[in-house]
Amino acid sequence: MALDVLDLVGIFVFGITGALVGVRKKLDVFGIQVLALVTGLGGGFLRDVLIGGRATPPAALADWRYLAVPVAAGLITFFLHPGIGRVERLVTVFDAAGLALFCVTGARKALDFGLSPLSAALLGTISAIGGGVIRDVLSGRVPVVLRSEIYATPAFLGAGIVVVADAAGYKATWVAFAGAIVCFLIRLIAIRRGWNAPLPRMR
Amino acid sequence: MALDVLDLVGIFVFGITGALVGVRKKLDVFGIQVLALVTGLGGGFLRDVLIGGRATPPAALADWRYLAVPVAAGLITFFLHPGIGRVERLVTVFDAAGLALFCVTGARKALDFGLSPLSAALLGTISAIGGGVIRDVLSGRVPVVLRSEIYATPAFLGAGIVVVADAAGYKATWVAFAGAIVCFLIRLIAIRRGWNAPLPRMR
Amino acid sequence: MALDVLDLVGIFVFGITGALVGVRKKLDVFGIQVLALVTGLGGGFLRDVLIGGRATPPAALADWRYLAVPVAAGLITFFLHPGIGRVERLVTVFDAAGLALFCVTGARKALDFGLSPLSAALLGTISAIGGGVIRDVLSGRVPVVLRSEIYATPAFLGAGIVVVADAAGYKATWVAFAGAIVCFLIRLIAIRRGWNAPLPRMR
Repeated sequence: MALDVLDLVGIFVFGITGALVGVRKKLDVFGIQVLALVTGLGGGFLRDVLIGGRATPPAALADWRYLAVPVAAGLITFFLHPGIGRVERLVTVFDAAGLALFCVTGARKALDFGLSPLSAALLGTISAIGGGVIRDVLSGRVPVVLRSEIYATPAFLGAGIVVVADAAGYKATWVAFAGAIVCFLIRLIAIRRGWNAPLPRMR
Repeated sequence: MALDVLDLVGIFVFGITGALVGVRKKLDVFGIQVLALVTGLGGGFLRDVLIGGRATPPAALADWRYLAVPVAAGLITFFLHPGIGRVERLVTVFDAAGLALFCVTGARKALDFGLSPLSAALLGTISAIGGGVIRDVLSGRVPVVLRSEIYATPAFLGAGIVVVADAAGYKATWVAFAGAIVCFLIRLIAIRRGWNAPLPRMR
Repeated sequence: MALDVLDLVGIFVFGITGALVGVRKKLDVFGIQVLALVTGLGGGFLRDVLIGGRATPPAALADWRYLAVPVAAGLITFFLHPGIGRVERLVTVFDAAGLALFCVTGARKALDFGLSPLSAALLGTISAIGGGVIRDVLSGRVPVVLRSEIYATPAFLGAGIVVVADAAGYKATWVAFAGAIVCFLIRLIAIRRGWNAPLPRMR
């Protein structure tokens, strides 16, 4: 089903971000694979464990493709990574793509498991930001979701589009595409324009 | 039910500690909201996922109040936070309140799901310390539970009071209040007196 | 059953590594206990939550031995820890033992819960590396699994031996011992020889 493909593409791009961070941190090929795996699969594990019941054990543990994809992402990045100077920019773009894909697939899966619209939107957001948080915490970076940029909000918007459309009876795959594109574009524009949200007043 | 209220108050005060740490770290309004959300809801997610079965998906994902409360805590803190100098003290006090409320509600919920007394006391402790650990790890602080203060112990005591009273047939809400007050006072006195536990001998 | 014993021994040695890291970080006796508990029990919690269903709540929450063992490990380490100079080496060796024991018990438990061979091998690996990752993240160290050494791979091998032998009809305890010994030896030799995996080319 098309959403499985979106899910695997999301795992692939998140895996690339994990591997690139590993390259940046000068980890060896195994450390890079581990970061590719936890970044690619972490958000989905979080999502499935929170849904619980029939959603566990996570599909990613049973289906070999869910393992092969981040491993491939890790190996490709290990051999073809660019100069360190350009790593950070690539991390940001691929991370935005993974965010966009996971927020819609996460929301869709939550709806398929009968969760309420609000729960589904939240689970989509959690699965979208989860992998990046795990990647950044393990590699000692400030989690991107906490940094001065629009991150969780576009994911919540993308998931919200899927949830609202579903409530309105639109369950087709193009809805997921629409949600993903909205999330991706807002995230990229925010990065490009350097949109910053207001900071607390300091006395 | 009264315990729901205690739970929401706990989420609120933990949300405030997360937001204050965000202010301290000079995060923007979104980063502050994220910290308020994970700190307020993290311990309960951990508790529900560990109980598993009917406890998942966590109520916090389905009930809009569980989302509104930490968001409100985050916004209030963002606009009304004190001078940075006083932030750390407020974090400590609100954190003690959240610890006290979560250890009893966590133990109560575990008992309601038929867990053994020991399991319930442990789950109460885990859900009490969970939010703070997530907050501190995400914001790059040494988790308070590891710092040189009495922290997990009063939570375990408060949860223990609920569990023992339950075994003795007392399930009323005032038992939860008693457990929470005991945990809160011990924690505050420990901070005030600067009680430190013995350190390992260094050779 | 013999695997329970292996599990408890694994919890004990992981608890020692957590306590030693606490000593190294000059934590007090409570902080050391907390690190001993999360390091000893963390991997198993992760394993049981991912298996889900009847595997939750984790046995470690219901069986007092699972609590007594890491507490004992923490206290013993607190009173008998060596000079700081030798702590790191001990952490490495005990960590290798815990890794070896958890990868086989994790794989075995996953098989007993009817998971597929691949899932079982992965769950064995996750439960083997989980405790150490939690220990290192909480205490602000670079997770050992990301450092320049063979770590996750021997765990996956050890778990793989249990899974393949099981598929071939060999379910006896000596299979688990064999898998654990293989993982332990490869890990120790890798440390001793200072085996490093290839690093990414830097341009």
